[in-house]
Order: sequence, then structure tokens, then C-alpha cells
Amino acid sequence: MSSTAGQVIRCKAAVAWEAGKPLVIEEVEVAPPQAMEVRLKILFTSLCHTDVYFWEAKGQTPLFPRIFGHEAGGIVESVGEGVTDLQPGDHVLPVFTGECKECRHCKSEESNMCDLLRINTDRGVMLSDNKSRFSINGKPIYHFVGTSTFSEYTVVHVGCVAKINPAAPLDKVCVLSCGISTGLGATLNVAKPWKGSSVAIFGLGAVGLAAAEGARIAGASRIIGIDLNPKRFNEAKKFGVTEFVNPKDHDKPVQEVIAEMTDGGVDRSVECTGNVNAMISAFECVHDGWGVAVLVGVPNKDDSFKTHPLNLLNERTLKGTFFGNYKPRSDLPSVVEKYMNKELELEKFITHEVPFAEINKAFEYMLSGDGLRCIIRMDA
Amino acid sequence: MSSTAGQVIRCKAAVAWEAGKPLVIEEVEVAPPQAMEVRLKILFTSLCHTDVYFWEAKGQTPLFPRIFGHEAGGIVESVGEGVTDLQPGDHVLPVFTGECKECRHCKSEESNMCDLLRINTDRGVMLSDNKSRFSINGKPIYHFVGTSTFSEYTVVHVGCVAKINPAAPLDKVCVLSCGISTGLGATLNVAKPWKGSSVAIFGLGAVGLAAAEGARIAGASRIIGIDLNPKRFNEAKKFGVTEFVNPKDHDKPVQEVIAEMTDGGVDRSVECTGNVNAMISAFECVHDGWGVAVLVGVPNKDDSFKTHPLNLLNERTLKGTFFGNYKPRSDLPSVVEKYMNKELELEKFITHEVPFAEINKAFEYMLSGDGLRCIIRMDA
Repeated sequence: MSSTAGQVIRCKAAVAWEAGKPLVIEEVEVAPPQAMEVRLKILFTSLCHTDVYFWEAKGQTPLFPRIFGHEAGGIVESVGEGVTDLQPGDHVLPVFTGECKECRHCKSEESNMCDLLRINTDRGVMLSDNKSRFSINGKPIYHFVGTSTFSEYTVVHVGCVAKINPAAPLDKVCVLSCGISTGLGATLNVAKPWKGSSVAIFGLGAVGLAAAEGARIAGASRIIGIDLNPKRFNEAKKFGVTEFVNPKDHDKPVQEVIAEMTDGGVDRSVECTGNVNAMISAFECVHDGWGVAVLVGVPNKDDSFKTHPLNLLNERTLKGTFFGNYKPRSDLPSVVEKYMNKELELEKFITHEVPFAEINKAFEYMLSGDGLRCIIRMDA
Repeated sequence: MSSTAGQVIRCKAAVAWEAGKPLVIEEVEVAPPQAMEVRLKILFTSLCHTDVYFWEAKGQTPLFPRIFGHEAGGIVESVGEGVTDLQPGDHVLPVFTGECKECRHCKSEESNMCDLLRINTDRGVMLSDNKSRFSINGKPIYHFVGTSTFSEYTVVHVGCVAKINPAAPLDKVCVLSCGISTGLGATLNVAKPWKGSSVAIFGLGAVGLAAAEGARIAGASRIIGIDLNPKRFNEAKKFGVTEFVNPKDHDKPVQEVIAEMTDGGVDRSVECTGNVNAMISAFECVHDGWGVAVLVGVPNKDDSFKTHPLNLLNERTLKGTFFGNYKPRSDLPSVVEKYMNKELELEKFITHEVPFAEINKAFEYMLSGDGLRCIIRMDA
């Protein structure tokens, strides 16, 4: 056991005191892990759009002060009671959703939406006792999606921790905690394009490019990227995108443009914008008979997906996915291995790196649409 | 070769002279089959709702005089040029949609929507020469969906003919030409429930009961039938339906009723009414994480399928199917074998039988909702 086991750890964390205001690096107290929890030393974390969305708190009830962060790589510092499959020193990825291995979802081969540990963005406390493990001078600081990785140490439920190959570089594989796995899995686990097939990717941000990377890995021969920003096409080529369609360049609906380009429609499509009209286009651009559209992007509360039911009757399939259908503990280790054996290229997703002290720069990059992933080095 | 090969055959056919008016048994001339066509002696035919729909001609451009009929069993009388895999004497089921074995759909493992021979309800003539093979005193009588089985002899494209086990009783397996296979395949080929799973069937007509029969064969432990007509439940029990829900008996949407009955939703659902609200209910009543809804019923032209996209993002799947995803020539023989080995029970679908001369009675049974399938004996 480490010398800190069972003790409160004082360390640095980036605290969001108010919606939309720059994070402040503070000294926080991190309580020891309780039953079925582990305390992690975070070495690298990266910024995902979901952090920014909840930090801006424009669409939901604000919960502050809070420690954001959910894409990260770290090492187990200590474990709470009942934790048997992790031990101090293990290399891990914390994940914003979990896998209890006991519920109907965990027991289903088709689902990764664990009943116990499914993402809950409203909860700022730990499950077991409804308390926070973070405090400053005794005043609690809220957690975020059970991970709060913008801290040198954090406490996470054991069901939200994937143990990975200790040889994997944490400053690269940390991006697999969320967005990259989400896009990659949407293609590889759900859309399942075959060698030589055609795939349309809606939205060429990090998640969309990860979906394209999945199509490249699967051997798709045509990967059509759709985005309103033409600057993204050049970058997208690195991820296997072979053709680019900007809906603004056409008078007709983009699904018709794609159908014309592909003799009736693409074999598979993956929607990564969350815009409901893009979802409809992504569905209607797949070929009848065998086309499969996969929805990844998160919609607005009042959105309505609408299509003529004949589009379905003509043997199209519409599916949605959450975290690329990966079960965090069971499946993420094998995604890390895909990187280790050079099948999956992660370096091209990492466009920036900042020391922890400059974490607000990562927010600026994200807000200005500059780059894909910014790695935040906790030790710098 | 039969003595009639190459000759015009004069025989009886039930001609629809006008929309909605009783059919008239007439003597018609049936021309010999042209290239890639076969002429069939029909022994048994049954009436399907689609015949009635186009005979009523309320929703489409009327095309009369016409010979309806598309569920049937018969024997090959003669074959046209180029037909190599059928010969006189073969026992066959004509099918309203075809399988050319050459197009992208036929080559796809996932599709049965043949580009060449896909159902076309507007066409009243043969593909090769845009002419009818039926006439009365030289005046052409139109075909219906390439089958026109309400005739002692008919001409069909070879791609629309399934060669089956000659030991199979044609007065039973003739119902596999359309509706029963449509419902059965929707469950077995598309929804794919597993042993012990729960399945909701919307609409307990012949197609819905065939879908229930599929769920029974698959070993589903709960088969929930949904219908506005409570009288149908008793009949439905024979097809494996274990529970019945009448949406009229509840104040809340039926999808909520089903979710409460099943701890969050059924594993699979199959929609066989064509009502767009039933389609939405059928989708929203499947469990998140793994639920699959399959649409079978044909919607109206102006319908819009609407749902909140989060219902999809929560890992539900929505699919449509056409003819139960069976490829007519490749797959129907094996469905006949399911009947022959007593896995599939067809007798319970056959509630009436009439001689050909009384074919209009079959229409009356269908219109009054009396029974499921009425077999029309051509030789009686």
C-alpha cells in the first residue's frame, strides 16, 4: 500500500467556481476511497466538449463549485473496501459511465448502459453516501460524471475504471476515456462497415474523425465527410476521409447529394453532430435494402426525429449508440491494444498540450474550434 | 414438355372489371411464357389484404380490368426461353416480389429488395415487352404484382417463382407466398428474439399472428399481443401470444403500459398494422440498451414517424422489413421445410376454404374481418 492510503491527500485541482468563468487551480483535500471506490493519481487528462458544455451550464441546472474532467489516464493510488480487481500501481482510464457487471445491461451482450453506473451529469457526489470526496477547508466541491479528472487525485467508483496495459503511454491513450472511443466504437461496434464499403460521417470534430478512423480501420473504400466548415476536410484526410460534402454548397438536401454520389446511398452512416436535421440526413442517405445509420451526437431536449416510415420499410436500419457501445471495463483494454499494435492511430487526434497550470488554454482552444484534443499534463 | 407448351391456353380466371365490384369468372386466353418467364397451373390461391386494397383502388390509380391474386401454390406447365432452373412439373410458389440473383440487392446478404423484380403495384404488364399475357377476345387483361393467381393458369417471371419440396401440400404452403412469410420472417430474420425473451406484436391479423408464430418458434417466453379488437386475443393464444393489451383500456400511451409490464420494455417488437402511431409505440416500447423494433405494416403516403432522438441514442434499434427479409427463390424453400418438419404450424392460419367459383366469398370474409386466410381451390 502507498503511504497515502487511508489518508486525506492534499493536492492541486482546477476548480470551476462559477459557470463559464476560468477554472482556478486550488489546493483541495481528497478523501480516501470508500467501499467499491478507488483513488487515482491522474497523470494526463484531456478536454472534451462535454466538460465545456456543463461548465457553460447553459442548458442545465448549474452545479458549482465543481471539478470537471473525464478523459484521463492515471495510476491507482489506493483502493476502498471490496475492491478486488484493481490494486495500487495499476494503470487505468477512468470513464464517465460504468460497468457494474451485475445488472441486466452489463449481462446483455448488446448494451453498455449499466443501470447502476450509467452517466449522470446531475449528480455531483459519490453513489455510496451522496457525499463529495473533494473539499476545500471542509467545504465540499462537487464531482462531475463520477470522474473529476482535473485534479491530481480523484476518487472514482471501481465500476468506472478500466485497467489497461501498463506499457501504454498514458499521455496518448487517455483520449480513449470518452470522445475517441465514442466515435470509433460507433463505427466498429455498431455501424460495422465491411471492407470496400462506403461510409458517410456527419460532423468532422474529434468524435466524427474517430468514427472515420473506425471506417478506415474497417477497410471502407469511400469515407464521405459532411461538415459545414470546409476547413475541416484537409485535416479529415488524415483520418481516411476520401470525399467531402458541405451541405451549404448544394440546393438540395444533403441526403440526396450523397445518394447521387453513391448510386442510391451509402452502406453505413454515422452522425456525430447532435443536430436533428443532420440525424435525419444521416438516416435518409443510407442505401435501401442494407443501409445502417448510427446516431452518436446528443440532441437537444425538444428535438423530434422525423422521417417517412417507408424509409424504414425499405430495409434501412436506424440505431443509436452511447460510448460506442463499449463496456468500459471489459472492452477499453482491447481498444488500448488496438493503439499498441498500431491499428489505431491516436497521435493525430492530439493537437495541443498544456501544463496543468494553463488548463484554461485548453478551454480556449476548444471554444475557438482550434484542434481536436488538448492534453493537460498534471505534473507540469 | 406438356402438350399445351407453346400454345395459348384457354382457362377460367376471376376478372376484376371495376374497382370494388365482385370478380367475374371469365374464360381468358393465357399466352405462352416469353424469355425468362414460366407459365404456372395454379392449384390453390389465397386472399391477402393487399389484393383487397388494390381491388378497392381507394388509394391509388385504378388499373382495370385486372386479375388479382398473389398467394398461391402451383405447378410449372411450361417455361420460356432461358429458363434453366425450373421445368414442367416443378411445384412452386409464385411471389409478388422477385430475386434476379444479379443485382446489388440480390448479391447482398442483408437485402431482398431486388432492383429488377421488386414489387410494383402500378405495373399491369410483363417486364420483357410491357404486354399482358392475359386476354379476352384479344383485349388485354392486366396483371397484378407479376403473379395474378386468380386464374387457372398464369405467367410469371422466373425470378418470382420459388421451387419447393414436391411433397409439400400446396393447399397449405400456398399461404407462404406473402403474408405469413412476411410476419414470420420479420420476427425470425429481423427481430431475432432469443429463447426466453419478450416480444410485443402490434396488430393480431394474419401477418401479426405469423410474427407471433415466429416468436413462439424462437422460444420467446412472453409474447404480448396489442390490438384494438379484444376478440382477437383468444385466437392469438394459438399462435403463442401469452398476454394481451388493448390500448383502448388505458389512459396512458401503450408503450408506457408495456414498459411497466416488462420492467422497462420488451426485448423485441414487431409492428404489423401500418398505423404510424402504432409504429411509434412499437419503437418506444422496446427496452433501452438492446431493444429492437421491426416495422412491417405499410404506412400511408403522408405519414411521419416521429420520436425523440434520445430514444435512439439509448441504444434502441429501429428497422423495417419487406417480405420478412426472405429472398423468394433462395429462402422460401426452407420456410416450406419448417412446415414439413412441424416447426411451423400453417393449419391454424387457414380458417376458410371456398371453390374458385365462390371467390367473392373470400373477399367478404376478409372485409368482415372474419378469419385469417381463405383458401380458394382452383379445381373445385
